[in-house]
Parts: sequence; C-alpha cells; structure tokens
Amino acid sequence: MENKASPAERGYHMPAEWENHSQCWMGWPERPDNWREDAVHGQCVFAKVASAISKFESVTVCARASQWANARDQLPQNIRVLEMSMNDAWFRDIGPTFVVCDRPLENKTQIVAGIDWNFNSWGGAIEGCYADWDLDSLVARKILEVERLIRFPHSMVLEGGSIHVDGEGTCITTEECLLNPNRNPDLTREDIEHQLKLYLGIKKIIWLPWGLYGDDDTNGHVDNMCCFVKPGVVMLAWTDDEHDPQYERSVEDYSILSKATDAQGRMLQIIKLCIPRPLFMTEEEAAGLKALDGKQRISGTRLATSYINFYIANKGIVAPAFGDEERDKEAFCVLSEAFPDREVVMIPGAREIALAGGNIHCITQQHPAGLV
Amino acid sequence: MENKASPAERGYHMPAEWENHSQCWMGWPERPDNWREDAVHGQCVFAKVASAISKFESVTVCARASQWANARDQLPQNIRVLEMSMNDAWFRDIGPTFVVCDRPLENKTQIVAGIDWNFNSWGGAIEGCYADWDLDSLVARKILEVERLIRFPHSMVLEGGSIHVDGEGTCITTEECLLNPNRNPDLTREDIEHQLKLYLGIKKIIWLPWGLYGDDDTNGHVDNMCCFVKPGVVMLAWTDDEHDPQYERSVEDYSILSKATDAQGRMLQIIKLCIPRPLFMTEEEAAGLKALDGKQRISGTRLATSYINFYIANKGIVAPAFGDEERDKEAFCVLSEAFPDREVVMIPGAREIALAGGNIHCITQQHPAGLV
Repeated sequence: MENKASPAERGYHMPAEWENHSQCWMGWPERPDNWREDAVHGQCVFAKVASAISKFESVTVCARASQWANARDQLPQNIRVLEMSMNDAWFRDIGPTFVVCDRPLENKTQIVAGIDWNFNSWGGAIEGCYADWDLDSLVARKILEVERLIRFPHSMVLEGGSIHVDGEGTCITTEECLLNPNRNPDLTREDIEHQLKLYLGIKKIIWLPWGLYGDDDTNGHVDNMCCFVKPGVVMLAWTDDEHDPQYERSVEDYSILSKATDAQGRMLQIIKLCIPRPLFMTEEEAAGLKALDGKQRISGTRLATSYINFYIANKGIVAPAFGDEERDKEAFCVLSEAFPDREVVMIPGAREIALAGGNIHCITQQHPAGLV
Repeated sequence: MENKASPAERGYHMPAEWENHSQCWMGWPERPDNWREDAVHGQCVFAKVASAISKFESVTVCARASQWANARDQLPQNIRVLEMSMNDAWFRDIGPTFVVCDRPLENKTQIVAGIDWNFNSWGGAIEGCYADWDLDSLVARKILEVERLIRFPHSMVLEGGSIHVDGEGTCITTEECLLNPNRNPDLTREDIEHQLKLYLGIKKIIWLPWGLYGDDDTNGHVDNMCCFVKPGVVMLAWTDDEHDPQYERSVEDYSILSKATDAQGRMLQIIKLCIPRPLFMTEEEAAGLKALDGKQRISGTRLATSYINFYIANKGIVAPAFGDEERDKEAFCVLSEAFPDREVVMIPGAREIALAGGNIHCITQQHPAGLV
C-alpha cells in the first residue's frame, strides 16, 4: 500500500521513542566480515537484547531463511521470528521510520504507517560499509507489508539512527552525517530540513555539528551521541578527559544545545552521560573476521562506544554495558535518574555490537502503538 | 506458543470452509521438477487464483526469499507477500489447520489457533512426492508465528486436503489416504478417528473408500473427490461414463454417502458434479520438467482433474476451469446453484495446477475470522 501525499500532509508525525510501542523490530546478524567467528557472539548478544526488550513489549526478530531455525532456537518462545532477507542487521537504519496519525478518523486512514527512506549502506558504493545493499533496501517495505501498513517511500537517503525526535515538533540530527556528500549530494541543508518536516511532521531541526568520535561507519549518527529523554531534556555523550578526541566534539555539541530552543520555544536541559574509557578492537577480535565485500576492520581501532545508544521500551530502558565497571555503573545511575518510571537493564557484552559498528539503538526499531 | 491439551479439550473446533475468513494463505510455486518451464505458467495461474480470492477476502502469498521480488511483481498490491521457505507450494497440506474457540472468554485464550500436523511429503521417503520436505514441515509453524497464534503440534501425519468438515461435528475423509500404510502405519482406523475428534473437535467421521482416479500423488485426498456445501449437503465428483475408471469410484462413494448420517443424525443430500472428460499430460508439458529429487511425471498420464477442488471464499467460490467448455460451464452452473449467495469465479488455465498434482483447494488455506 503506497501513498503519494507526504505523511505530514496526511496528519502523520513521528512519535517520540518513549511513547507507547506495539512492538520492537530487530534483525539477526550473520555476515562473517562484520560479526566475528561467524556471528556466534553477535547472535548471542542480539538474543540478550531481544530477550530484555521482550520483558517490556512484543519483539519480532527477522532472520534470513538459512538463519531462521538458528534464531528460533536462540530466542525465547515469546519472541516472534520471521524470515526476511537482509545484507546486515541494523534495523534502526534499514527498517521503516514509523509515524502515527493525529486524525485517523477524519482521513479514514490507518493510525500507524511507515516511511521507507532510501538507503545506500551509509555512504554509497565507495564510502559505504558494504558493496551490495539490495536486500537491506527492501527491509522497510517488507516490515510494513507484514503488518499491512501504509508505506511512504522517499528517494532521500536517510537512516533512522541519524535522527531523534521529541514528538512535539523537534528533531535533532548531525551535520556530520546528514550534510555528508556521500548521502544526498544534490540536496542543500534547507532541502533536507524541508523533507524532514514533510515526512517526520516536525517544525524545527537542531543541527549538532558532530556525532561520536570514531563513529566513521555511520558518519556520526546522532543516536550514538545525543538523544531526547523527554520534551525539553536531552542526554549527551560526554567525557571529562581533555585528551580524548571525543572531548572537543562533546563540548561543541554542548555549546549548540545550550543555546538552542526546541519547536515549542523551550531552552533545553542537558544531561551529560560519560562514555566508557577508550576501548579498542583487539587482535583476536580482528582475526575472527573473514574478508568479504564489507569494510575491513583492523585491530587497534577505537570503538565508537557510548551509552547514549540505548533503546527506550515500554516501561524499560535497555542499554549497553561495556565492561568498564565504573562507567557502566555510572550510566546505570544516570539513566535510572533520567527515566524514573522505567526499569533500566544493562546488557553485558554489548561491546560485541560496537565491534560491528553500532549498538542497541542501532539494532532496534520501535513500532508505535499509535494510541493516546 | 505451544499448548499441550488437545484443541477439542480446550474448546476449539475446525469451522466449515464457508464460515467467515479473515484471510487466505497461499504459497508460490517454484520447483522445476514439478512446475514446467521453471514454474512460469504455474506462477501465472497462482497469481490468477490469488487475485480472484483477493476480491473476496485478504490474501497472503508466501514465497521463498529468492522468489519474493518475482511474486511481488506478479501479484496485485492488495495481496500481502511474505518471505517463507518451502519445498513446494501446497498450503492446504503443509499449512496449519485453523481451529476456532467456542469459549474464548472462559478459557482466556485466543479465538483462532492452528494445528501443525506431521507431514511426510504424501507418503514418506519412498512413496512420497519428493525426498526432502524439511522446509514444508516448518510452514504451518511459521504461518502461526506470523500471526502470533497458538500452535497445537501433532505427531500424526495428516494433510489438510485429506479432510473436510461441516462445522457441525462431521468430517469426511477417504480410506484410500488416511488408512494408507505410507502415512501412519502404527495407527488403526479407531486411533485415527480418536485423534481427529480430539483435534478437529468433531463427533463423527464418514469414511469414503476412494478419492479421485489418478490422484496418486495424494493417495486420494477427499478434497479432489467430495466436499460439504452446507450442513447436510455434500458435492461429489461424478462421471456418467461407465468406461472411465472414475465411474466405479464415484458409484462406491455415492453408495456410502447415500446411507450415511452426519453428526447431527441427518441423511445427506448428494449433489453430483461431473469431472471434465479425461485429460492427459502432453509430451510438450512433460518435456518442460527438469529432473530433480521429485517424482517423475510422464507424458500420457491421466490428470486428476475435478471441479470439486474449489475454494470457498467470503461471498465467493473460486473454482478451476479445464478448457472442456461444456463441463466447465456445467460446473459453473452447478456451483452457482449450490452456493446461491456467492459469486462463482472459474479460473482458466487451472490445468497447470493439475499437471503438478493438485488444484485450487490444494494451494489455498482459509484462516477463519472466528467471529460469530
């Protein structure tokens, strides 16, 4: 089911992640050039994340046909496992951006629909993460088809991890990603703003200069750097270590945020969330990867690890733990204080997802319930 | 979601096919040893059947990953296309048998659930239609998982095409199939009756000796020979040609039916529906098949063609036409009279499905709405 008018024109907008979900969508990792040792560790941590989320809301995990039985075996029975082809498993970026309708009765339309953005493997044939993304490009459409939801296709390249919204008209994103010429070289900043307004139903975009240091795969997705906690409150990846290259990035973003107002004219409260101390890919980890058409990963590379990359579930927060006990504990406390009505669950071993270029928010996609 | 108590014990029964459906499930043909010329003609007629049914109710077509785009292209937009692995495309036999609950509130359970029978490729490793049916064996489970429905697994070998019910306690089946030692050699007739009662929620089984002449693939499935039209009324494949080997089969079944009473104690009204004049596989048709692990099909073989193999949709009947104009027309008239409140749609080219061993009822599976 396709529709030509833009979502905003039809009364749709993207809700905030903390609004009620009907379920969470995830993929299933497999490619051995990105998930070491034939993805055995990656699959284990995906199963942990899915299980944790399934305590709060329904979960659907999609796996390639050849992986269905394996995924089904590793996941609890209350999780739905569907066959779906994909090139990798980043459903935040290849899944649909779900939107909800404010006036379904007036338009005689569905309450929930999905935007199917264009996808180019985070940068296209040369700068992207792998050379063939044909299957990824169909994932959003297939998800919407499973649920028989209206699909709004868009020719603009955009990944879900590059935007965050407060559900009250404000979007935050990064210049590093959205203005990167490897995404939409023919679109100006104004063009992109216009399209985001038409599709996300937002009124104002706050542009941060930078994503996280080392997040080269995504060119600085905002979802590893900064997110909304509630309207008027953001959380920012932080470090007090002036020698860490992350420091300047956090300071610059903080500076922009501290002067910004949101779509409702509010100044923003900024919560700092310290990243773990620098983590690097080990030789053993790099040796577990097989060469295919994907980006080569080298031992000694700084991992783009940030606690900001968490998922907001119904009544829960599912966040990465990196084995830096002090910082993991600190993140747990900051998140628990910021979300007093939700149970914070930290997932040990989330380093495994960082080795492949992302984290918990990157591998999940909330499907809003769309009910007030 | 699995459940150990039998469906009948939990208040479930299999509704009649004419009761309201929420959708119809179909597969997508592909294997070149059963569908000539790489299934190009078979896919065309599947698309026609799916389109015809979709005028009356929602349709989901499942296709192997490599066929998803092809199926999506050939099917109208209002039909949902999902990825699903299968060895062939006979969803009547490999899909779940859906059952509905009479007392959902009392049991705090779902209204619709599904039975996942054991499947052995219509006869096992030696007598079956193909040697590897691992993927077929998962189809019922996967369908139920898509819809998050309760699954009642059963170790007994049974295909959906071998049973018909009237929704009021009566089941018809054939001895030729259900008592064939290539299905459940360790179960007696009484054992099978007991299991059918426990799982289909029925009270009485009427055993016909025979299925259709030439229906060797299925060992005489009842759905090519006889079906219920409404409680108390059956329709039987017939021929007046005493030289046709079908004649004796129809006469014997008629004799049984004419003496039978249903679960409610009613005598049965029997409507005769003449089969087309004998049709045979041509040399050209046989030459279009490639040798794989499936049963070899030989030119000159009598096709098991019967108009009984139709699908009852919401407000519609979708039935095969075989190109025997006189008999096709007669079937249209008999069906129209038997189902005065439904529009009868005859599908030209249904011979293509008969070449592969079945027809419209064999490739469809109704998913009851379960609402009164």
